[in-house]
Amino acid sequence: MAAPLKDELDIVIPTIRNLDFLEMWRPFFQPYHLIIVQDGDPSKTIKVPEGFDYELYNRNDINRILGPRASCISFKDSACRCFGYMVSKKKYIYTIDDDCFVAKDPSGKDIDALARHIKNLLCPSTPLFFNTLYDPFADGADFVRGYPFSLREGVPTAVSHGLWLNIPDYDAPTQLVKPRERNSRYVDAVMTIPKGTLFPMCGMNLAFDRDLIGPAMYFGLMGDGQPIGRYDDMWAGWCINVICDHLGLGVKTGLPYIWHSKASNPFVNLKKEYKGIFWQEDTIPFFQAVTLPRDCDTVQKCYVALSQQVRDKLGKVDPYFTKLADAMVTWIEAWDTLNPREAAANGTAKGK
Amino acid sequence: MAAPLKDELDIVIPTIRNLDFLEMWRPFFQPYHLIIVQDGDPSKTIKVPEGFDYELYNRNDINRILGPRASCISFKDSACRCFGYMVSKKKYIYTIDDDCFVAKDPSGKDIDALARHIKNLLCPSTPLFFNTLYDPFADGADFVRGYPFSLREGVPTAVSHGLWLNIPDYDAPTQLVKPRERNSRYVDAVMTIPKGTLFPMCGMNLAFDRDLIGPAMYFGLMGDGQPIGRYDDMWAGWCINVICDHLGLGVKTGLPYIWHSKASNPFVNLKKEYKGIFWQEDTIPFFQAVTLPRDCDTVQKCYVALSQQVRDKLGKVDPYFTKLADAMVTWIEAWDTLNPREAAANGTAKGK
Repeated sequence: MAAPLKDELDIVIPTIRNLDFLEMWRPFFQPYHLIIVQDGDPSKTIKVPEGFDYELYNRNDINRILGPRASCISFKDSACRCFGYMVSKKKYIYTIDDDCFVAKDPSGKDIDALARHIKNLLCPSTPLFFNTLYDPFADGADFVRGYPFSLREGVPTAVSHGLWLNIPDYDAPTQLVKPRERNSRYVDAVMTIPKGTLFPMCGMNLAFDRDLIGPAMYFGLMGDGQPIGRYDDMWAGWCINVICDHLGLGVKTGLPYIWHSKASNPFVNLKKEYKGIFWQEDTIPFFQAVTLPRDCDTVQKCYVALSQQVRDKLGKVDPYFTKLADAMVTWIEAWDTLNPREAAANGTAKGK
Repeated sequence: MAAPLKDELDIVIPTIRNLDFLEMWRPFFQPYHLIIVQDGDPSKTIKVPEGFDYELYNRNDINRILGPRASCISFKDSACRCFGYMVSKKKYIYTIDDDCFVAKDPSGKDIDALARHIKNLLCPSTPLFFNTLYDPFADGADFVRGYPFSLREGVPTAVSHGLWLNIPDYDAPTQLVKPRERNSRYVDAVMTIPKGTLFPMCGMNLAFDRDLIGPAMYFGLMGDGQPIGRYDDMWAGWCINVICDHLGLGVKTGLPYIWHSKASNPFVNLKKEYKGIFWQEDTIPFFQAVTLPRDCDTVQKCYVALSQQVRDKLGKVDPYFTKLADAMVTWIEAWDTLNPREAAANGTAKGK
């Protein structure tokens, strides 16, 4: 079978090590182009297994390409991956962590995670009403009795959020309390996140339509020089929830699973997370209440409008959020500079 | 194992035929008390298999017990089941259709649907934020990274909505288009319906906490003398969505599955449904927008306030909704008359 969307999808991998994990993914990933974002010391050499088509960016490359705007890209944190979203020229992105392997379905068959994400992205979402039999577009399923016919067309899907068998994506306190917990429950479902609902988006196994939502897929300021880590994907997810709701786009979660091989150190994680654990008690109500001006009709405009509200409302919680709001604007300027045609079409190309 | 909540739960079954289907449920249902609501001709005798503890009400009983208020209970429609909710004195209700049998889980084991519903009801719901690993209280699961700690206590669960293997709960148009579709997907998950989200609640396999939400579990005016059928459970579900959101209660959907044995006639269903198919295009936006006054602090008060808005807003769609709004008030009066202690505590006992 030909690889679906072969010329329209990039795989983005943030890493600090040799990419041996790709061997297991070879049958599924080799047809695609990889964008590798090397984190940490740029003088180190990352080895990529033979036969993969890739481009690799280290910190020196990021600084050279973005100039002063490189400040919006995190360092010593896998949040740096979003640079890959920006330099890609493809319609779709799949991003995966380098400790994620091929999982098996209950019949023992290897799961082609990428193929499933593509299926999710190419099929509409249904955020306006809940379908009790899950994805109404799945084989053997449909909309149930009582589902309004006017809502069955659905909306375009912007994001496909996949899950993890083995090591679940827990925060440090839960890791500490349940060090041996493993996820062995294979839930055979894909669901749309209902409109108005926030969800914790994990960047481990994530695909999205770059044309529809790319400029909002910013992973924030994390890691080196920042007071916080491990909230990069969460932050992006909450921004995306709000913007997808505003623009009438959908977010799916569920299948496909990957096999998450090893838990990160809970003590290190606690240090990275503890401010975030406090702050999310303010950021969640903020995102639950935020509304975007009606004239924000592109992702870029939505994102800049959101950054202003982050500055106004969350800036009071901690000066970090003022810095983050600045970085959100810088990110959009950098995005538009690297994607001038798109920026011109959006009327947001002021940053050039 | 002793039957959980044996003295605190009634099983309500609406029927027009002998209850042979109970034979298959015997190991699971026999410890419980049954309330059988006989629909249609009251002179017919319903045979209940030996050994079950039950009370049976036919139309004559309903008329005798409720007097003029019996008008709020549907006739020649399984919506009559809600009379059983009203006469029960138990904290929990499980209701099941008489064409629903014991399903098997993927390992081939019989599913004790009732035990699973009880588990769902006794465990909190999490409507305020989405958990990507589904029920955070399930064995081997928890709240994922990014889930605010302040929301992890959850809220009391008022409703547990179970699903159906084999014949899915489709509307008549979908039945007509897909006569051979069967649901064989066993999704091993229980989820909370997020706050602000409406869902299509099916009465086939449904449990609820009567103390928390009982007076809102009204199945409307359907069947004989009414212009509509097959929207009884849907109507109850949308009312319950709104009232649970207002009162801070949770609704779960997913496990357990029952085996739904045979599809109802799609031509008959189309006749019952076709007005509902039009009307739901107005009722859904109504329920999506409705808010209840802050001083509505009991289910009864919420329900009466909701009936006023049904009259004001949906009465314009069709005179049926004015009649339905009246019936909603009558239902609450009848409920309070049969449950005077509860009504006194709620301060809604005006109808006596």
